[in-house]
Amino acid sequence: MTDPLRLGIAGLGTVGAGVVEIATRHHNLIAHRAGRPIAISAVSARARSRDRGIDLSAYAWEDDPVALARRDDVDVFVELIGGENGAALEATEAALAAGKDVVTANKAMLARHGQRLAETAEPKGAAIRFEAAVAGGIPVVKALTEGLAANEITRVMGVMNGTCNYILTRMEEAGLPYEEVFAEADALGYLEADPNLDVGGIDAGHKLSLLAAIAFGTKVSFDAVELEGIGRIEIEDIRQAADMGFRIKLLGVARMTGRGLEQRMSPCLVPADSPLGQLQGGTNMVVIEGDSVGQIVLRGPGAGRGPTASAVMADVIDLARGFRHSTFGRPATSLSDPVSARAAAPAPYYLRLQLQDKPGALAKVAAVLGEAGVSIDRMRQYGHADASAAPVLIVTHKTTRDALDHATRGFAATGVVVGQPVAIRIEAV
Amino acid sequence: MTDPLRLGIAGLGTVGAGVVEIATRHHNLIAHRAGRPIAISAVSARARSRDRGIDLSAYAWEDDPVALARRDDVDVFVELIGGENGAALEATEAALAAGKDVVTANKAMLARHGQRLAETAEPKGAAIRFEAAVAGGIPVVKALTEGLAANEITRVMGVMNGTCNYILTRMEEAGLPYEEVFAEADALGYLEADPNLDVGGIDAGHKLSLLAAIAFGTKVSFDAVELEGIGRIEIEDIRQAADMGFRIKLLGVARMTGRGLEQRMSPCLVPADSPLGQLQGGTNMVVIEGDSVGQIVLRGPGAGRGPTASAVMADVIDLARGFRHSTFGRPATSLSDPVSARAAAPAPYYLRLQLQDKPGALAKVAAVLGEAGVSIDRMRQYGHADASAAPVLIVTHKTTRDALDHATRGFAATGVVVGQPVAIRIEAV
Repeated sequence: MTDPLRLGIAGLGTVGAGVVEIATRHHNLIAHRAGRPIAISAVSARARSRDRGIDLSAYAWEDDPVALARRDDVDVFVELIGGENGAALEATEAALAAGKDVVTANKAMLARHGQRLAETAEPKGAAIRFEAAVAGGIPVVKALTEGLAANEITRVMGVMNGTCNYILTRMEEAGLPYEEVFAEADALGYLEADPNLDVGGIDAGHKLSLLAAIAFGTKVSFDAVELEGIGRIEIEDIRQAADMGFRIKLLGVARMTGRGLEQRMSPCLVPADSPLGQLQGGTNMVVIEGDSVGQIVLRGPGAGRGPTASAVMADVIDLARGFRHSTFGRPATSLSDPVSARAAAPAPYYLRLQLQDKPGALAKVAAVLGEAGVSIDRMRQYGHADASAAPVLIVTHKTTRDALDHATRGFAATGVVVGQPVAIRIEAV
Repeated sequence: MTDPLRLGIAGLGTVGAGVVEIATRHHNLIAHRAGRPIAISAVSARARSRDRGIDLSAYAWEDDPVALARRDDVDVFVELIGGENGAALEATEAALAAGKDVVTANKAMLARHGQRLAETAEPKGAAIRFEAAVAGGIPVVKALTEGLAANEITRVMGVMNGTCNYILTRMEEAGLPYEEVFAEADALGYLEADPNLDVGGIDAGHKLSLLAAIAFGTKVSFDAVELEGIGRIEIEDIRQAADMGFRIKLLGVARMTGRGLEQRMSPCLVPADSPLGQLQGGTNMVVIEGDSVGQIVLRGPGAGRGPTASAVMADVIDLARGFRHSTFGRPATSLSDPVSARAAAPAPYYLRLQLQDKPGALAKVAAVLGEAGVSIDRMRQYGHADASAAPVLIVTHKTTRDALDHATRGFAATGVVVGQPVAIRIEAV
């Protein structure tokens, strides 16, 4: 195979420009490794005239990514437009309809339409590869789909939104409240145009749903991911957690239980001395557990031009080498419809609530927990400036989320709990 | 492709039995993922009658692994015999001569004969895969060869001998001397028959030489790995390092410098709060740095039945899927003969020496260092029971190993340094 593999690249933002740059700079190195040259035939973006710091003069230009996807001189359509619908989806569908392979970094599109796209691609022998869609430069899709393919996967966990981890780290290190660090992150350009994609856990949830499909042989089911963002975490929670040897992370967990597929993206307490607990700043980490291999931890940059382009080009090199497997690691038609289980596995929980400063208040709360079957491991009432309400911290023994929610609903009737309690799962990692 | 991929497994020790067990237990899961069934045709081992806790009755038996490797009903020869020469090598050569693919966990054989074996395999279109040879269950060969294939690799580092890391961790945690922990590890069966393979750094050096070949496109050159074992590390070194915020690890480092390929497997000081510094016990870690991706860290079990068998079966599944690339990620004939550079990159060093308790002794040592061009960052003389000689600890500024060795040779002439100094590189990770 000495014919070049010919790319059509749609989307020339940070990542697209990075892909062009790597393909040019490492043309010979990549040809050696891939066994054949990788050539760019054509590119497409919204603004042709924008200066991207790269020379595009050798490539054909298409204003319309759908036209790019259909070009005869394109073997692989590289989709870097972004967005779950619109041009990205249309052009991807056009490429697959024409029997072309697709490499994409678009987690939102795959989380929504991945099953349908895979079912379109596979009968035509077309591949869809998406290493760059999950945890940026970390080769985690490859590790799960190929490197650990002999394992029954028991759990996949990940810190996969660098912005959230940056915010939580910065809150801890600088002792600043959420709102202030959020504003800082915004000013630094770390947040998506819709910040809820980051801090609401949606972006990380998209990624988790893709890993879960591979891990458990189920159809991508993003709607079944229990999402909870980091907006309710207070600096006090971070301090109390640290005091007990924990850190708070926006952690994705997917696991197949007897009751079905559990997928959660939510703040969790993890031991501060565990790999996940030690992950500070914008770095990503994915933990994969398999029945034979035990626990594998992968850590690296989850975003940015170089890392994301590295992942896109790895997929392209795989295709140049002729490595083709089903989109989610087994035929799309064989993926099962998952039964979704809501946080079924019991865990200890961290619970923080505001208690009116009256005699017997603590006893009333304890009684409600007891009636719900939630037993208390540790409880403390700590110093406070406000004389009318005292913060109380409770760590429960293992309990289900249902039992805990039952208890917290019961707090209202006690007349001593002020506002909404904060409940954070303590994940055994 | 629905024809089964047919294996011949030579060697039925812990790992071989684990491979048979996984192939049986996950037969359907693996067939789904691989796109075709994986079948075992025949097996071979030294003692046929030994009870291995697995049912071998469905497979043909060969006393001679060479005969196994040549069988018509074997597509992939799985070499789990071990040893750099002898039966493992003979049977591997026989399999390749017959045009069959080989999957092996044998780092010693590949470190010695990998280039020749690759040159035998590739003209015949045969593949040699060795994920299990490096860092057990961690899919690091795959990450380097495929997942990061678009990068110019700048450095590969790894803690890849669990026994050494166990010994160093145990010394630190229990405050026990090397000899005592070594005896413990021996009693627990953690050590190879020739313990120097572990504590002398040879086993980990084999692994490093394989990763370096992939990373830098050079012929495997194990003889050029600078090897230094952990036998000279004293509990005092571990304590002093900890006091300065470091841990001592048997760390492999491979890097391409302007002067050539640097490959070292030696004790190093690394920051205690870095991923490598945090790695306690028998777990392995590999750090890969690439020009686009930045730093990727992979962590997991480096040995044991399940993890190693997981890696062997991942290679088998890749072959079943038709994933075939050159042994070291590019054609063997294109790999270059590396110029070996001895620890060329300057680094700060930790230096511990015994000084006679006389006036002016410290000044003499400082003068020798100064003359060699080695400048001192920190120096301290600390408490000691022995009145005749005082331990002195020096941390140098960045210097070359050559300059440092020049200085330590010069210590003899001062007449105030007792015994051999301990010098440990401080690696920036």
